[in-house]
Amino acid sequence: MVKILISGFEPFGGDAVNPTGVLMDALANEVIEGAELKTVLLPVHFDECADLLIAEMEAYRPDVVIACGLAKGRTSITPERIAVNVKDIPPGSYADNQGQRPMDEPIVDGSPDGLFSTLPIRAMVNDMSAAGIPATVSNTAGTYICNNTMYRILDYIRVGQLPIRAGFVHFPASTEMAVLQPSVPSLPIPMMLDALRIMIRTVVADS
Amino acid sequence: MVKILISGFEPFGGDAVNPTGVLMDALANEVIEGAELKTVLLPVHFDECADLLIAEMEAYRPDVVIACGLAKGRTSITPERIAVNVKDIPPGSYADNQGQRPMDEPIVDGSPDGLFSTLPIRAMVNDMSAAGIPATVSNTAGTYICNNTMYRILDYIRVGQLPIRAGFVHFPASTEMAVLQPSVPSLPIPMMLDALRIMIRTVVADS
Amino acid sequence: MVKILISGFEPFGGDAVNPTGVLMDALANEVIEGAELKTVLLPVHFDECADLLIAEMEAYRPDVVIACGLAKGRTSITPERIAVNVKDIPPGSYADNQGQRPMDEPIVDGSPDGLFSTLPIRAMVNDMSAAGIPATVSNTAGTYICNNTMYRILDYIRVGQLPIRAGFVHFPASTEMAVLQPSVPSLPIPMMLDALRIMIRTVVADS
Amino acid sequence: MVKILISGFEPFGGDAVNPTGVLMDALANEVIEGAELKTVLLPVHFDECADLLIAEMEAYRPDVVIACGLAKGRTSITPERIAVNVKDIPPGSYADNQGQRPMDEPIVDGSPDGLFSTLPIRAMVNDMSAAGIPATVSNTAGTYICNNTMYRILDYIRVGQLPIRAGFVHFPASTEMAVLQPSVPSLPIPMMLDALRIMIRTVVADS
Repeated sequence: MVKILISGFEPFGGDAVNPTGVLMDALANEVIEGAELKTVLLPVHFDECADLLIAEMEAYRPDVVIACGLAKGRTSITPERIAVNVKDIPPGSYADNQGQRPMDEPIVDGSPDGLFSTLPIRAMVNDMSAAGIPATVSNTAGTYICNNTMYRILDYIRVGQLPIRAGFVHFPASTEMAVLQPSVPSLPIPMMLDALRIMIRTVVADS
Repeated sequence: MVKILISGFEPFGGDAVNPTGVLMDALANEVIEGAELKTVLLPVHFDECADLLIAEMEAYRPDVVIACGLAKGRTSITPERIAVNVKDIPPGSYADNQGQRPMDEPIVDGSPDGLFSTLPIRAMVNDMSAAGIPATVSNTAGTYICNNTMYRILDYIRVGQLPIRAGFVHFPASTEMAVLQPSVPSLPIPMMLDALRIMIRTVVADS
Repeated sequence: MVKILISGFEPFGGDAVNPTGVLMDALANEVIEGAELKTVLLPVHFDECADLLIAEMEAYRPDVVIACGLAKGRTSITPERIAVNVKDIPPGSYADNQGQRPMDEPIVDGSPDGLFSTLPIRAMVNDMSAAGIPATVSNTAGTYICNNTMYRILDYIRVGQLPIRAGFVHFPASTEMAVLQPSVPSLPIPMMLDALRIMIRTVVADS
Repeated sequence: MVKILISGFEPFGGDAVNPTGVLMDALANEVIEGAELKTVLLPVHFDECADLLIAEMEAYRPDVVIACGLAKGRTSITPERIAVNVKDIPPGSYADNQGQRPMDEPIVDGSPDGLFSTLPIRAMVNDMSAAGIPATVSNTAGTYICNNTMYRILDYIRVGQLPIRAGFVHFPASTEMAVLQPSVPSLPIPMMLDALRIMIRTVVADS
């Protein structure tokens, strides 16, 4: 039995819903063979989001962590390759939900510049593609809350030399969001939920 | 009973499949209350496509024509507002399937510069949106085969003063296409088929 | 001597400057062989903008009208091919400077659906390209103030059967705007001013 | 006197010219106070490009290396924040000039996942912006030749503990390129050359 901790985010940036929050609700009662699942919803705040996820890791002691977030504007489901040790919100972008707007700050002083995902990202992409779901590896998780969460958990595992595989997956806007903003690329929630199930099975098969 | 003629296109531009062709296959055996449906698949060639659709109109004598085409890169389903009296393929774009590349040529000499769709495009968009499908009115059908088809049928109706409502709807790439090109926005074929059913019901209700 | 009336717009949509306003200032004292130039700055309001431009046409009696506007997001200078007889501001876009937000309304009841530019748009594009300036013909001027202005002056000329050539040219953001919003494509004001000079010479040569 | 080695690339991907090659030619005879400049043109091949640049570093012993490359589609000048230890050309993208198409391969086995630029990237962006040139920090140099070059030189410096600052700057397409492909964002070569001069002065001031 592979213990898998999966996280999503609260809404931010003026949207009423965050599809990764919807995915967490949908996944909460899911049974996937070989996996024991636990979901958690994170606040969109630079420090709290990762603090809370790490607290969940300490409590639940998972084998795998899959953190999920929204990347409005993307067209496919994108497992992230690398987290970078920086907090930076460019002028003109959203501040976090508490109004923070850091620039060029390290997330963890003295830690590595970048940390690779330890999830089987290529197999995840291949398995989603084989199931007819648009997916590709992403080479930047940005420098916002999503990257922050990914970096913090990877660095926590690195420092503690823990036997945990972890990484981050960005999802596009849901079709519900695109109904209100028709120029935004989207995928339906049921397809994104299938994608998450597939990625969980990929991870189980690879464990 | 509203007689509705619906058209899709053959593949072009290097893609193996055209989602509007897939939609025609799926719709062929469909029963929608109040509607009598006939589908037709058009070649991607400037003159033949409209010639063939007009021949079908003469044979079938529909009350409504909904011509459908692919607009790769769009994010939502887009009923077109207007067709313009020009054939123009910009340098660097695809030629049609017979290698034609006209520039700034009128489609029909002496006919109006632009012709509005006579479909209930706003109601179609509203009904799709209400069903959770991303949709918006488009203000350009381009200057390629799709615009050509739309212009030719609207001008044919105009000249003959025929009691036929007609227009064009562009569909985004299907998720199958986006699996191969993950940077292309897409919607699933089942959702696009639902959208087409909804638009047919909107037209029936408005007839 | 070809009398040419050229218009630009006031700022809108939250931007402090409209590059077409800057171009009008720069052009005001320009001397171009064979041309007599007059510039005018228009307010961003659906009715006033075209009213004012038509009043200038009545006062100045130009041979040619080149109306200019900003299309933030475009990458090149785009003479418009056609104006359409509709006012429509999609939800989520800017209202005009007086808060108007019309939907699917005709600009002029009973006038044609679309009206082609009567400027030599292909020659203008070719001459700008030959001078190293990115340019292309555009097939939609939108359904906002710019299209409104273009439609109104073309329809005014059509109704009055006046010997005036007229059309609209959209310009991208200026580099000054892109400094503040680095994801917006831009061209420098001096290059856009050169483009305007070239288009004026193209029109003079074609008159 | 700060010794600065600056590199550009040969054309690739079907374009006749690479603007960074043009910049190297233009910069070859430039005199900038406080700086001693040397330029080098690199081939677009995964191993040779970095081998050649490192050989130049060994011969010239610079204080600073600014590697430059083209990122067609970007709208502004983008100093890169981080290089990642991976070679990956996604399906559908260009192979390098010798037809290589690696996937998920490390650039240097056992070296760090990511390495930050040691150039003053924020000051470079601020100084370009102050001069009216669109610029922003980029958080991904991709996984192609440009990232490869950046990673290799940063890792070479890291391993040798050399007193050299180094990094990579991506430039958008030039307006000459956009004349042929008007949907591609661009900046003029003279503006990009000014940008390079400004970045050199920023580096000199910061040394």
